[in-house]
Amino acid sequence: MDINQFLADRSRLMRASEIRELLKWVTENVISFGGGMPDPSSFPAKEIIEITRDILTTKAEKALQYGTTGGILELKEELIKFMGKVGIKVDGPENIIITVGSQEALDMIGRLFINPGDCVITESPTYLAALQAFRIYGPRIVGIPMDEEGIRVDVLEDTVRKLINDGGKPKFIYVIPTGQNPTGITMNMERRKELLDIASRYDLLIIEDDPYGYIYFGDGEPPARLKAMDGEGRVIYLSTFSKIAAPGLRLGWVAASKEAIRWFELAKQSIDLHTSTLNQYIAAELLRKGIIEKNIPRIKEIYRTKRDLMLQALSEYMPEGVTWTKPSAGMFIWLTTPEKIDTTAMLEIAIKKYGVAYVPGKSFYPNEDRHNDMRLNFTYPTPEQIFEGIKRLAMAIKEVITQ
Amino acid sequence: MDINQFLADRSRLMRASEIRELLKWVTENVISFGGGMPDPSSFPAKEIIEITRDILTTKAEKALQYGTTGGILELKEELIKFMGKVGIKVDGPENIIITVGSQEALDMIGRLFINPGDCVITESPTYLAALQAFRIYGPRIVGIPMDEEGIRVDVLEDTVRKLINDGGKPKFIYVIPTGQNPTGITMNMERRKELLDIASRYDLLIIEDDPYGYIYFGDGEPPARLKAMDGEGRVIYLSTFSKIAAPGLRLGWVAASKEAIRWFELAKQSIDLHTSTLNQYIAAELLRKGIIEKNIPRIKEIYRTKRDLMLQALSEYMPEGVTWTKPSAGMFIWLTTPEKIDTTAMLEIAIKKYGVAYVPGKSFYPNEDRHNDMRLNFTYPTPEQIFEGIKRLAMAIKEVITQ
Repeated sequence: MDINQFLADRSRLMRASEIRELLKWVTENVISFGGGMPDPSSFPAKEIIEITRDILTTKAEKALQYGTTGGILELKEELIKFMGKVGIKVDGPENIIITVGSQEALDMIGRLFINPGDCVITESPTYLAALQAFRIYGPRIVGIPMDEEGIRVDVLEDTVRKLINDGGKPKFIYVIPTGQNPTGITMNMERRKELLDIASRYDLLIIEDDPYGYIYFGDGEPPARLKAMDGEGRVIYLSTFSKIAAPGLRLGWVAASKEAIRWFELAKQSIDLHTSTLNQYIAAELLRKGIIEKNIPRIKEIYRTKRDLMLQALSEYMPEGVTWTKPSAGMFIWLTTPEKIDTTAMLEIAIKKYGVAYVPGKSFYPNEDRHNDMRLNFTYPTPEQIFEGIKRLAMAIKEVITQ
Repeated sequence: MDINQFLADRSRLMRASEIRELLKWVTENVISFGGGMPDPSSFPAKEIIEITRDILTTKAEKALQYGTTGGILELKEELIKFMGKVGIKVDGPENIIITVGSQEALDMIGRLFINPGDCVITESPTYLAALQAFRIYGPRIVGIPMDEEGIRVDVLEDTVRKLINDGGKPKFIYVIPTGQNPTGITMNMERRKELLDIASRYDLLIIEDDPYGYIYFGDGEPPARLKAMDGEGRVIYLSTFSKIAAPGLRLGWVAASKEAIRWFELAKQSIDLHTSTLNQYIAAELLRKGIIEKNIPRIKEIYRTKRDLMLQALSEYMPEGVTWTKPSAGMFIWLTTPEKIDTTAMLEIAIKKYGVAYVPGKSFYPNEDRHNDMRLNFTYPTPEQIFEGIKRLAMAIKEVITQ
């Protein structure tokens, strides 16, 4: 029986992640900068053992039972306090929904807002899995270029104006303001204000994806969240426990206006009823007991140290003509080789001959055709692997440059 | 800012579950047969405490980390053995995907297979949340009537033939063969064979939703799963840990052909990346240690006892003209009142005046207009509540009959 005859048209829009496909060559001897995984030494495993014991001793009948679609009250209340500390004011639990990681929130955003042919705006390059989530719903994605200070708001405004004139007002602007994926760039304060101002003047929605804001490891504090400056309820704010606790829990959240959250609840009801009750109780306790807050400085320290190591290795080994970003948050460095190199084509040589892997930059661009960037993860590999891996990568680049 | 202006057309298809809306009147003094929750005394809480401790002591770096989209190998291998015991032969782990409850599988089925306007077939009445999941994708849903032996395969064949003649070949037939929701009816063996035969002759997909097969509490064994008799890879089989372990874990699985599972993985990747790794390890251990198998007879006993109690109370209190099903599996009894009664209209009286709640039958029908059924859950209420609640319900019905 041929399953393909039964497929809906939208299934043809589903593509296997290129990352996963390309990384199938990775064997034990390959050092991979390809993933996007946190350092497992940062997981509060012992604390979760204790918390699980307490929860299942005192309220198993709730923690193992079905729950409400929006999420458990205890967790939402802890999140209100947690976000409050970074200046995000949330009126109440009706302004929050708990999701299966941020990815589920991205899918729901596509589901709720995108009609086929609708225009949506992202940074360019942007998070690959957001592009994947949106694309199922058939949008036209318009990428706005970035520089070292974040999204180019001047280009953004020109683009929005043009789109509106052409009758194609964008449904939303998706941004990762702090430690952007894949570039590691943090949008400066001026740009943030300008972005909110544009959204207000042209009556647009902003999706603020903030997986890394709580583990900003630059000097001082990161610039205020867009959500913290959102006077008009235009910002739909996403974050996750994947980087401040553990990705294996599959827990994220959305903070937005009550009206928006009600729509997310309707969507989620038919997607998966609700997020794991047990895991929600675990996260609520990790917050309530201050375990996450105590863990955050440790995570920052791990990330900062590994970033510094990678930056040091890069300056040491990379040939002339190669440039890279200096992230103050996030998990990635974005490296640009001379124009001559096609990083997708180079990957096979890098893996098979030099034993090092990365993600080619191409698929992070919503609609630009660029071929000479790559994304490097510095949080998962060990210090030794970082040094050795960058050395190998430099050799691969040198070989391809001189070809 | 008005969020509604940004919504996609499909969002208008999202409706709040009528169950949830109607049950908002339920207060502490109301006995509710409205939910669909298992008896919390059946949850293996102590065992999960121990298992979590073991997992997080020995492999926290895996159990708290990101995992593959399809699910962890350990769980898939346990599921192969588990399904093998009921006659379902699965070639290997590539034939299984782990989902966030069965609900996620239902959503993915809609996403993968339904184009707007496509025809899909269900039993009538059928599971409300399946209807909700499919409806987002804009199908025409055709319900096939049931009798006490299950779906009317004669009507099914006539319908399929007519649909094909009209150029509208159905995308799939969705059935819950054992302990059907909402009726509690178990499809007999002959009907199962006939259903598979029709699927084969007309080249159709079958979705077999089997949440209750493992806790069948009728005499002897339940008739073989459709999947166990599926020689042509036509059956996409769904089941869940919600009834054999605990719904709060949000774990379900799909078993199907490799080709089909590959499509589910593509869909799931952009929906939520993967299901909670920790919870998957917990389920794998619950199976490996035989805790689920040891728990199943206890669950059956609880369910059988409560069903018997409800049946007894029904015969004792219900007035003439009221009929109900006698389920050998599942969590529900389907009750039909005299034509005169509109169970949706009656609900307010039942709750406010008599302190008892149920789910009106209307919304379980994909396209029939029937108003005098209701669904009663017997697994969650206590024995006292079952007796007292049915007594109250009988009084409400008597009042409305004589109005």
